[in-house]
Amino acid sequence: QLISERFGRGSRTVDLELETQIELLRETKRKYECVLQLARALTNHFYSLVQTQHALGDAFADLSQKSPELQEEFGYNAETQKLLCKNGETLLGAVNFFVSSINTLVNKTMEDTLMTVKQYETARLEYDAYRTDLEELSMGPRDASTLCRLDAAQSQFQSHKDKYEKLRADVAIKLKFLEENKIKVMHKQLLLFHNAISAYFAGNQQQLEQTLKQFNIKLKTPGAEKPSWLEEQ
Amino acid sequence: QLISERFGRGSRTVDLELETQIELLRETKRKYECVLQLARALTNHFYSLVQTQHALGDAFADLSQKSPELQEEFGYNAETQKLLCKNGETLLGAVNFFVSSINTLVNKTMEDTLMTVKQYETARLEYDAYRTDLEELSMGPRDASTLCRLDAAQSQFQSHKDKYEKLRADVAIKLKFLEENKIKVMHKQLLLFHNAISAYFAGNQQQLEQTLKQFNIKLKTPGAEKPSWLEEQ
Repeated sequence: QLISERFGRGSRTVDLELETQIELLRETKRKYECVLQLARALTNHFYSLVQTQHALGDAFADLSQKSPELQEEFGYNAETQKLLCKNGETLLGAVNFFVSSINTLVNKTMEDTLMTVKQYETARLEYDAYRTDLEELSMGPRDASTLCRLDAAQSQFQSHKDKYEKLRADVAIKLKFLEENKIKVMHKQLLLFHNAISAYFAGNQQQLEQTLKQFNIKLKTPGAEKPSWLEEQ
Repeated sequence: QLISERFGRGSRTVDLELETQIELLRETKRKYECVLQLARALTNHFYSLVQTQHALGDAFADLSQKSPELQEEFGYNAETQKLLCKNGETLLGAVNFFVSSINTLVNKTMEDTLMTVKQYETARLEYDAYRTDLEELSMGPRDASTLCRLDAAQSQFQSHKDKYEKLRADVAIKLKFLEENKIKVMHKQLLLFHNAISAYFAGNQQQLEQTLKQFNIKLKTPGAEKPSWLEEQ
Protein backbone atom coordinates (compact mmCIF):
# COMPACT_ATOMS: atom_id res chain seq x y z
CA GLN A 1 0.00 0.00 0.00
CA LEU A 2 2.98 2.25 0.52
CA ILE A 3 3.81 1.94 -3.13
CA SER A 4 0.31 2.89 -4.25
CA GLU A 5 0.59 5.99 -2.09
CA ARG A 6 3.61 7.02 -4.05
CA PHE A 7 1.65 7.15 -7.28
CA GLY A 8 -0.36 10.29 -7.23
CA ARG A 9 -1.87 10.52 -3.76
CA GLY A 10 -0.07 11.33 -0.54
CA SER A 11 2.64 13.84 0.24
CA ARG A 12 6.30 12.93 0.20
CA THR A 13 8.99 14.09 2.58
CA VAL A 14 11.83 15.49 0.50
CA ASP A 15 15.32 16.48 1.60
CA LEU A 16 16.30 18.20 -1.59
CA GLU A 17 19.97 18.73 -0.74
CA LEU A 18 20.47 15.13 0.33
CA GLU A 19 18.64 13.73 -2.68
CA THR A 20 20.70 15.84 -5.05
CA GLN A 21 23.85 14.47 -3.43
CA ILE A 22 22.51 10.90 -3.71
CA GLU A 23 21.66 11.36 -7.38
CA LEU A 24 25.13 12.78 -7.96
CA LEU A 25 26.70 9.78 -6.22
CA ARG A 26 24.74 7.37 -8.41
CA GLU A 27 25.87 9.23 -11.52
CA THR A 28 29.49 9.33 -10.36
CA LYS A 29 29.35 5.60 -9.63
CA ARG A 30 28.06 4.91 -13.16
CA LYS A 31 30.84 7.01 -14.65
CA TYR A 32 33.52 5.40 -12.50
CA GLU A 33 32.17 1.96 -13.43
CA CYS A 34 32.68 2.94 -17.03
CA VAL A 35 36.28 4.03 -16.31
CA LEU A 36 36.82 0.77 -14.42
CA GLN A 37 35.52 -1.28 -17.34
CA LEU A 38 37.75 0.62 -19.77
CA ALA A 39 40.78 0.29 -17.50
CA ARG A 40 40.16 -3.47 -17.32
CA ALA A 41 39.87 -3.64 -21.12
CA LEU A 42 43.11 -1.64 -21.35
CA THR A 43 44.80 -4.12 -19.03
CA ASN A 44 43.58 -7.07 -21.11
CA HIS A 45 44.60 -5.60 -24.46
CA PHE A 46 47.89 -4.52 -23.01
CA TYR A 47 48.49 -7.94 -21.53
CA SER A 48 47.85 -9.55 -24.96
CA LEU A 49 50.17 -6.99 -26.53
CA VAL A 50 52.99 -7.83 -24.13
CA GLN A 51 52.49 -11.56 -24.70
CA THR A 52 52.71 -10.99 -28.47
CA GLN A 53 55.80 -8.81 -28.06
CA HIS A 54 57.35 -11.61 -26.06
CA ALA A 55 56.67 -14.19 -28.80
CA LEU A 56 57.81 -11.74 -31.48
CA GLY A 57 61.03 -11.10 -29.56
CA ASP A 58 61.69 -14.86 -29.48
CA ALA A 59 60.92 -15.23 -33.20
CA PHE A 60 63.26 -12.35 -34.09
CA ALA A 61 66.01 -13.74 -31.86
CA ASP A 62 65.72 -17.15 -33.53
CA LEU A 63 65.80 -15.60 -37.01
CA SER A 64 68.78 -13.45 -36.02
CA GLN A 65 70.74 -16.60 -35.20
CA LYS A 66 69.70 -18.38 -38.37
CA SER A 67 69.91 -15.53 -40.91
CA PRO A 68 73.54 -14.43 -41.26
CA GLU A 69 72.52 -11.93 -43.93
CA LEU A 70 69.90 -10.26 -41.70
CA GLN A 71 71.42 -11.03 -38.31
CA GLU A 72 71.75 -7.42 -37.25
CA GLU A 73 68.24 -6.38 -38.35
CA PHE A 74 66.55 -9.27 -36.58
CA GLY A 75 68.87 -8.76 -33.62
CA TYR A 76 67.95 -5.18 -32.80
CA ASN A 77 64.27 -5.95 -33.29
CA ALA A 78 64.54 -8.87 -30.84
CA GLU A 79 66.16 -6.63 -28.25
CA THR A 80 63.58 -3.88 -28.66
CA GLN A 81 60.68 -6.31 -28.21
CA LYS A 82 62.27 -7.83 -25.15
CA LEU A 83 62.87 -4.46 -23.56
CA LEU A 84 59.26 -3.49 -24.27
CA CYS A 85 58.05 -6.68 -22.56
CA LYS A 86 59.98 -5.85 -19.43
CA ASN A 87 58.62 -2.29 -19.32
CA GLY A 88 55.18 -3.59 -20.24
CA GLU A 89 55.07 -5.89 -17.25
CA THR A 90 55.99 -3.02 -14.99
CA LEU A 91 53.23 -0.87 -16.49
CA LEU A 92 50.76 -3.74 -16.06
CA GLY A 93 51.59 -3.72 -12.35
CA ALA A 94 50.71 -0.02 -12.15
CA VAL A 95 47.50 -0.28 -14.22
CA ASN A 96 46.42 -3.29 -12.20
CA PHE A 97 46.88 -1.34 -8.98
CA PHE A 98 44.76 1.43 -10.50
CA VAL A 99 42.04 -1.07 -11.48
CA SER A 100 42.09 -2.71 -8.06
CA SER A 101 41.81 0.63 -6.22
CA ILE A 102 38.99 1.96 -8.41
CA ASN A 103 37.22 -1.37 -8.00
CA THR A 104 37.38 -1.04 -4.20
CA LEU A 105 36.16 2.55 -4.36
CA VAL A 106 33.25 1.76 -6.66
CA ASN A 107 32.17 -1.70 -5.58
CA LYS A 108 32.93 -1.51 -1.87
CA THR A 109 33.03 2.08 -0.61
CA MET A 110 30.38 3.62 -2.89
CA GLU A 111 28.26 0.47 -2.74
CA ASP A 112 28.32 0.56 1.07
CA THR A 113 27.03 4.14 1.11
CA LEU A 114 24.34 3.27 -1.43
CA MET A 115 23.17 0.41 0.81
CA THR A 116 22.64 2.94 3.59
CA VAL A 117 20.89 5.17 1.05
CA LYS A 118 18.49 2.30 0.26
CA GLN A 119 17.75 1.80 3.96
CA TYR A 120 17.19 5.54 4.23
CA GLU A 121 14.78 5.48 1.29
CA THR A 122 12.79 2.60 2.78
CA ALA A 123 12.66 4.42 6.14
CA ARG A 124 11.47 7.57 4.37
CA LEU A 125 8.69 5.62 2.67
CA GLU A 126 7.55 4.01 5.94
CA TYR A 127 7.78 7.28 7.79
CA ASP A 128 5.59 9.00 5.20
CA ALA A 129 3.07 6.15 5.37
CA TYR A 130 2.71 6.42 9.16
CA ARG A 131 2.67 10.19 8.89
CA THR A 132 -0.23 10.01 6.42
CA ASP A 133 -2.06 7.50 8.66
CA LEU A 134 -1.73 9.83 11.62
CA GLU A 135 -2.83 12.86 9.62
CA GLU A 136 -5.94 11.06 8.34
CA LEU A 137 -6.86 9.84 11.81
CA SER A 138 -6.33 13.32 13.29
CA MET A 139 -8.77 14.82 10.79
CA GLY A 140 -11.48 12.22 11.46
CA PRO A 141 -14.14 12.21 14.23
CA ARG A 142 -12.86 11.54 17.76
CA ASP A 143 -14.33 8.89 20.04
CA ALA A 144 -12.79 6.43 22.52
CA SER A 145 -11.83 3.89 19.83
CA THR A 146 -10.22 6.42 17.48
CA LEU A 147 -8.40 8.08 20.38
CA CYS A 148 -6.85 4.72 21.17
CA ARG A 149 -5.93 4.21 17.50
CA LEU A 150 -4.60 7.77 17.37
CA ASP A 151 -2.30 6.98 20.28
CA ALA A 152 -0.97 3.88 18.54
CA ALA A 153 -0.53 5.79 15.28
CA GLN A 154 1.26 8.58 17.11
CA SER A 155 3.69 6.09 18.63
CA GLN A 156 4.28 4.33 15.28
CA PHE A 157 4.79 7.72 13.62
CA GLN A 158 7.33 8.76 16.24
CA SER A 159 9.39 5.58 16.08
CA HIS A 160 9.53 5.70 12.27
CA LYS A 161 10.32 9.38 12.34
CA ASP A 162 13.29 8.63 14.63
CA LYS A 163 14.44 5.82 12.39
CA TYR A 164 14.12 8.03 9.31
CA GLU A 165 16.02 10.88 10.89
CA LYS A 166 18.76 8.62 12.16
CA LEU A 167 19.26 7.12 8.69
CA ARG A 168 19.12 10.56 7.07
CA ALA A 169 21.93 11.65 9.37
CA ASP A 170 23.84 8.41 8.60
CA VAL A 171 23.53 9.01 4.89
CA ALA A 172 24.63 12.63 5.21
CA ILE A 173 27.73 11.61 7.17
CA LYS A 174 28.57 8.71 4.84
CA LEU A 175 28.20 10.96 1.80
CA LYS A 176 30.53 13.48 3.36
CA PHE A 177 33.19 10.89 4.19
CA LEU A 178 32.76 9.20 0.83
CA GLU A 179 33.31 12.47 -0.99
CA GLU A 180 36.53 13.07 0.96
CA ASN A 181 37.65 9.50 0.45
CA LYS A 182 36.79 9.58 -3.26
CA ILE A 183 38.84 12.72 -3.82
CA LYS A 184 41.79 11.31 -1.89
CA VAL A 185 41.73 7.94 -3.69
CA MET A 186 41.12 9.36 -7.15
CA HIS A 187 43.73 12.08 -6.74
CA LYS A 188 46.31 9.42 -5.90
CA GLN A 189 45.18 6.89 -8.53
CA LEU A 190 44.87 9.39 -11.37
CA LEU A 191 48.34 10.67 -10.58
CA LEU A 192 49.73 7.14 -10.53
CA PHE A 193 47.93 6.21 -13.75
CA HIS A 194 49.16 9.30 -15.51
CA ASN A 195 52.75 9.05 -14.30
CA ALA A 196 53.04 5.34 -15.08
CA ILE A 197 51.48 5.67 -18.54
CA SER A 198 53.58 8.75 -19.35
CA ALA A 199 56.80 7.12 -18.20
CA TYR A 200 56.07 3.92 -20.12
CA PHE A 201 55.11 5.65 -23.36
CA ALA A 202 58.14 7.91 -23.09
CA GLY A 203 60.29 4.79 -22.83
CA ASN A 204 61.47 5.94 -19.41
CA GLN A 205 62.02 2.67 -17.54
CA GLN A 206 63.64 4.41 -14.60
CA GLN A 207 60.81 6.88 -14.12
CA LEU A 208 58.29 4.05 -14.48
CA GLU A 209 59.96 2.02 -11.75
CA GLN A 210 60.27 5.16 -9.64
CA THR A 211 56.51 5.70 -9.98
CA LEU A 212 55.77 2.19 -8.78
CA LYS A 213 58.07 2.64 -5.81
CA GLN A 214 56.47 5.97 -5.00
CA PHE A 215 53.03 4.32 -4.84
CA ASN A 216 54.33 1.26 -3.01
CA ILE A 217 53.38 -1.14 -5.78
CA LYS A 218 55.23 -4.42 -5.64
CA LEU A 219 55.41 -6.62 -8.71
CA LYS A 220 54.82 -10.14 -7.51
CA THR A 221 56.87 -12.98 -8.99
CA PRO A 222 58.30 -11.09 -11.97
CA GLY A 223 58.66 -13.24 -15.05
CA ALA A 224 56.22 -15.90 -13.81
CA GLU A 225 54.20 -17.58 -16.52
CA LYS A 226 50.91 -16.04 -15.48
CA PRO A 227 51.37 -12.52 -14.16
CA SER A 228 49.91 -11.94 -10.74
CA TRP A 229 47.79 -9.02 -11.86
CA LEU A 230 45.45 -11.42 -13.63
CA GLU A 231 44.48 -13.07 -10.37
CA GLU A 232 42.83 -9.96 -9.09
CA GLN A 233 40.57 -9.51 -12.08
CA GLN B 1 53.75 -46.26 -60.64
CA LEU B 2 56.17 -43.37 -60.30
CA ILE B 3 55.30 -43.12 -56.66
CA SER B 4 55.93 -46.80 -55.99
CA GLU B 5 59.34 -46.40 -57.58
CA ARG B 6 60.16 -43.80 -55.03
CA PHE B 7 59.69 -46.23 -52.19
CA GLY B 8 62.73 -48.39 -52.06
CA ARG B 9 63.48 -49.34 -55.66
CA GLY B 10 64.87 -47.07 -58.35
CA SER B 11 67.60 -44.46 -58.21
CA ARG B 12 66.82 -40.81 -57.66
CA THR B 13 68.48 -37.85 -59.32
CA VAL B 14 69.62 -35.50 -56.59
CA ASP B 15 70.91 -31.96 -56.89
CA LEU B 16 72.13 -31.65 -53.33
CA GLU B 17 72.92 -27.93 -53.42
CA LEU B 18 69.56 -27.02 -54.93
CA GLU B 19 67.61 -29.25 -52.54
CA THR B 20 69.39 -27.75 -49.55
CA GLN B 21 68.41 -24.29 -50.79
CA ILE B 22 64.80 -25.43 -51.30
CA GLU B 23 64.62 -26.91 -47.80
CA LEU B 24 66.06 -23.68 -46.42
CA LEU B 25 63.44 -21.65 -48.30
CA ARG B 26 60.62 -23.79 -46.90
CA GLU B 27 61.98 -23.32 -43.39
CA THR B 28 62.41 -19.58 -43.87
CA LYS B 29 58.86 -19.35 -45.18
CA ARG B 30 57.54 -21.15 -42.09
CA LYS B 31 59.45 -18.81 -39.81
CA TYR B 32 58.33 -15.70 -41.69
CA GLU B 33 54.74 -16.94 -41.57
CA CYS B 34 55.12 -17.12 -37.82
CA VAL B 35 56.45 -13.53 -37.72
CA LEU B 36 53.58 -12.47 -39.97
CA GLN B 37 51.03 -14.09 -37.69
CA LEU B 38 52.56 -12.42 -34.63
CA ALA B 39 52.76 -9.05 -36.37
CA ARG B 40 49.06 -9.37 -37.25
CA ALA B 41 48.23 -10.27 -33.65
CA LEU B 42 50.29 -7.26 -32.54
CA THR B 43 48.30 -5.04 -34.91
CA ASN B 44 45.00 -6.38 -33.58
CA HIS B 45 45.91 -6.02 -29.90
CA PHE B 46 47.35 -2.62 -30.58
CA TYR B 47 44.25 -1.56 -32.46
CA SER B 48 42.07 -2.64 -29.52
CA LEU B 49 44.40 -0.80 -27.17
CA VAL B 50 44.11 2.42 -29.16
CA GLN B 51 40.31 2.11 -29.30
CA THR B 52 40.23 1.66 -25.52
CA GLN B 53 42.57 4.62 -25.01
CA HIS B 54 40.22 6.66 -27.16
CA ALA B 55 37.19 5.72 -25.04
CA LEU B 56 39.17 6.25 -21.85
CA GLY B 57 40.27 9.68 -23.06
CA ASP B 58 36.62 10.60 -23.63
CA ALA B 59 35.57 9.26 -20.22
CA PHE B 60 38.34 11.23 -18.48
CA ALA B 61 37.47 14.40 -20.42
CA ASP B 62 33.81 14.07 -19.41
CA LEU B 63 34.73 13.49 -15.76
CA SER B 64 37.13 16.42 -15.87
CA GLN B 65 34.26 18.71 -16.87
CA LYS B 66 31.90 17.31 -14.25
CA SER B 67 34.26 16.91 -11.29
CA PRO B 68 35.43 20.34 -10.15
CA GLU B 69 37.38 18.73 -7.31
CA LEU B 70 39.33 16.41 -9.65
CA GLN B 71 39.23 18.52 -12.81
CA GLU B 72 42.97 18.75 -13.18
CA GLU B 73 43.67 15.05 -12.53
CA PHE B 74 41.06 13.86 -15.01
CA GLY B 75 42.17 16.59 -17.41
CA TYR B 76 45.79 15.57 -17.79
CA ASN B 77 44.81 11.92 -18.05
CA ALA B 78 42.37 12.78 -20.86
CA GLU B 79 45.09 14.64 -22.72
CA THR B 80 47.63 11.85 -22.33
CA GLN B 81 45.19 9.22 -23.64
CA LYS B 82 44.29 11.40 -26.60
CA LEU B 83 47.91 12.02 -27.49
CA LEU B 84 48.59 8.28 -27.26
CA CYS B 85 45.70 7.60 -29.63
CA LYS B 86 47.14 9.94 -32.20
CA ASN B 87 50.60 8.38 -31.97
CA GLY B 88 49.03 4.94 -31.87
CA GLU B 89 47.27 5.47 -35.16
CA THR B 90 50.53 6.55 -36.74
CA LEU B 91 52.27 3.45 -35.41
CA LEU B 92 49.42 1.29 -36.71
CA GLY B 93 50.12 2.71 -40.16
CA ALA B 94 53.74 1.61 -39.91
CA VAL B 95 53.00 -1.86 -38.50
CA ASN B 96 50.36 -2.37 -41.13
CA PHE B 97 52.84 -1.54 -43.86
CA PHE B 98 55.22 -4.07 -42.31
CA VAL B 99 52.48 -6.73 -42.23
CA SER B 100 51.44 -6.00 -45.80
CA SER B 101 55.02 -6.21 -47.10
CA ILE B 102 55.85 -9.44 -45.25
CA ASN B 103 52.56 -10.86 -46.49
CA THR B 104 53.54 -10.11 -50.10
CA LEU B 105 57.00 -11.58 -49.59
CA VAL B 106 55.71 -14.78 -47.97
CA ASN B 107 52.43 -15.42 -49.77
CA LYS B 108 53.27 -14.07 -53.22
CA THR B 109 57.02 -14.00 -53.85
CA MET B 110 58.06 -17.09 -51.87
CA GLU B 111 54.89 -18.93 -52.87
CA ASP B 112 55.62 -18.26 -56.55
CA THR B 113 59.11 -19.76 -56.25
CA LEU B 114 57.72 -22.76 -54.39
CA MET B 115 55.23 -23.34 -57.23
CA THR B 116 58.17 -23.57 -59.62
CA VAL B 117 59.88 -25.87 -57.12
CA LYS B 118 56.83 -28.16 -57.23
CA GLN B 119 56.92 -28.24 -61.04
CA TYR B 120 60.64 -28.99 -60.82
CA GLU B 121 59.99 -31.84 -58.38
CA THR B 122 57.32 -33.36 -60.63
CA ALA B 123 59.66 -33.04 -63.64
CA ARG B 124 62.44 -34.71 -61.64
CA LEU B 125 60.12 -37.60 -60.78
CA GLU B 126 59.04 -38.05 -64.40
CA TYR B 127 62.59 -37.75 -65.65
CA ASP B 128 63.76 -40.44 -63.22
CA ALA B 129 60.88 -42.70 -64.27
CA TYR B 130 61.76 -42.45 -67.98
CA ARG B 131 65.42 -42.78 -67.16
CA THR B 132 64.71 -46.03 -65.27
CA ASP B 133 62.53 -47.27 -68.16
CA LEU B 134 65.31 -46.59 -70.61
CA GLU B 135 67.94 -48.24 -68.40
CA GLU B 136 65.80 -51.35 -67.96
CA LEU B 137 65.14 -51.60 -71.70
CA SER B 138 68.84 -51.07 -72.49
CA MET B 139 69.78 -53.97 -70.25
CA GLY B 140 67.21 -56.34 -71.81
CA PRO B 141 67.56 -58.48 -74.99
CA ARG B 142 67.54 -56.58 -78.31
CA ASP B 143 65.22 -57.45 -81.19
CA ALA B 144 63.28 -55.37 -83.71
CA SER B 145 60.40 -54.73 -81.29
CA THR B 146 62.60 -53.74 -78.36
CA LEU B 147 64.77 -51.57 -80.59
CA CYS B 148 61.66 -49.69 -81.57
CA ARG B 149 60.56 -49.36 -77.93
CA LEU B 150 64.11 -48.30 -77.03
CA ASP B 151 63.92 -45.50 -79.61
CA ALA B 152 60.62 -44.27 -78.13
CA ALA B 153 62.00 -44.54 -74.58
CA GLN B 154 65.12 -42.66 -75.64
CA SER B 155 63.02 -39.86 -77.05
CA GLN B 156 60.75 -39.71 -73.98
CA PHE B 157 63.85 -39.72 -71.79
CA GLN B 158 65.41 -36.86 -73.72
CA SER B 159 62.33 -34.63 -73.68
CA HIS B 160 61.80 -35.17 -69.93
CA LYS B 161 65.49 -34.62 -69.31
CA ASP B 162 65.24 -31.27 -71.15
CA LYS B 163 62.15 -30.33 -69.18
CA TYR B 164 63.81 -31.31 -65.90
CA GLU B 165 66.96 -29.36 -66.67
CA LYS B 166 65.03 -26.30 -67.77
CA LEU B 167 63.00 -26.31 -64.54
CA ARG B 168 66.12 -26.93 -62.47
CA ALA B 169 67.67 -23.86 -64.03
CA ASP B 170 64.45 -21.89 -63.44
CA VAL B 171 64.40 -22.87 -59.79
CA ALA B 172 68.06 -21.96 -59.35
CA ILE B 173 67.49 -18.53 -60.88
CA LYS B 174 64.30 -17.91 -58.90
CA LEU B 175 66.00 -18.93 -55.67
CA LYS B 176 68.84 -16.53 -56.37
CA PHE B 177 66.52 -13.61 -57.12
CA LEU B 178 64.28 -14.50 -54.17
CA GLU B 179 67.24 -14.48 -51.81
CA GLU B 180 68.28 -11.02 -53.04
CA ASN B 181 64.72 -9.77 -52.90
CA LYS B 182 64.15 -11.24 -49.44
CA ILE B 183 67.23 -9.52 -48.04
CA LYS B 184 66.28 -6.20 -49.63
CA VAL B 185 62.65 -6.35 -48.42
CA MET B 186 63.45 -7.62 -44.94
CA HIS B 187 66.30 -5.17 -44.44
CA LYS B 188 63.92 -2.31 -45.23
CA GLN B 189 60.95 -3.69 -43.27
CA LEU B 190 62.92 -4.64 -40.18
CA LEU B 191 64.46 -1.18 -40.14
CA LEU B 192 61.04 0.44 -40.51
CA PHE B 193 59.50 -1.79 -37.84
CA HIS B 194 62.30 -1.08 -35.42
CA ASN B 195 62.39 2.67 -36.02
CA ALA B 196 58.62 3.07 -35.80
CA ILE B 197 58.30 0.94 -32.65
CA SER B 198 61.27 2.67 -31.02
CA ALA B 199 59.99 6.15 -31.84
CA TYR B 200 56.49 5.32 -30.62
CA PHE B 201 57.59 3.73 -27.35
CA ALA B 202 59.98 6.60 -26.73
CA GLY B 203 57.04 8.98 -27.12
CA ASN B 204 58.81 10.63 -30.04
CA GLN B 205 55.93 11.70 -32.30
CA GLN B 206 58.22 13.65 -34.61
CA GLN B 207 60.61 10.76 -35.18
CA LEU B 208 57.66 8.41 -35.71
CA GLU B 209 56.18 10.64 -38.40
CA GLN B 210 59.65 11.08 -39.90
CA THR B 211 59.97 7.28 -40.13
CA LEU B 212 56.69 6.98 -41.98
CA LYS B 213 57.74 9.71 -44.40
CA GLN B 214 61.09 8.04 -44.94
CA PHE B 215 59.35 4.81 -45.94
CA ASN B 216 56.71 6.58 -48.01
CA ILE B 217 53.84 5.36 -45.85
CA LYS B 218 50.72 7.43 -46.20
CA LEU B 219 48.03 7.26 -43.54
CA LYS B 220 44.76 7.12 -45.40
CA THR B 221 41.76 9.07 -44.09
CA PRO B 222 43.12 9.87 -40.64
CA GLY B 223 40.43 9.84 -37.98
CA ALA B 224 37.99 7.80 -40.08
CA GLU B 225 35.76 5.48 -38.10
CA LYS B 226 37.38 2.32 -39.39
CA PRO B 227 41.10 2.76 -39.99
CA SER B 228 42.22 1.85 -43.46
CA TRP B 229 44.84 -0.59 -42.24
CA LEU B 230 42.10 -3.03 -41.31
CA GLU B 231 41.00 -3.38 -44.89
CA GLU B 232 44.24 -4.97 -45.94
CA GLN B 233 44.14 -7.69 -43.34
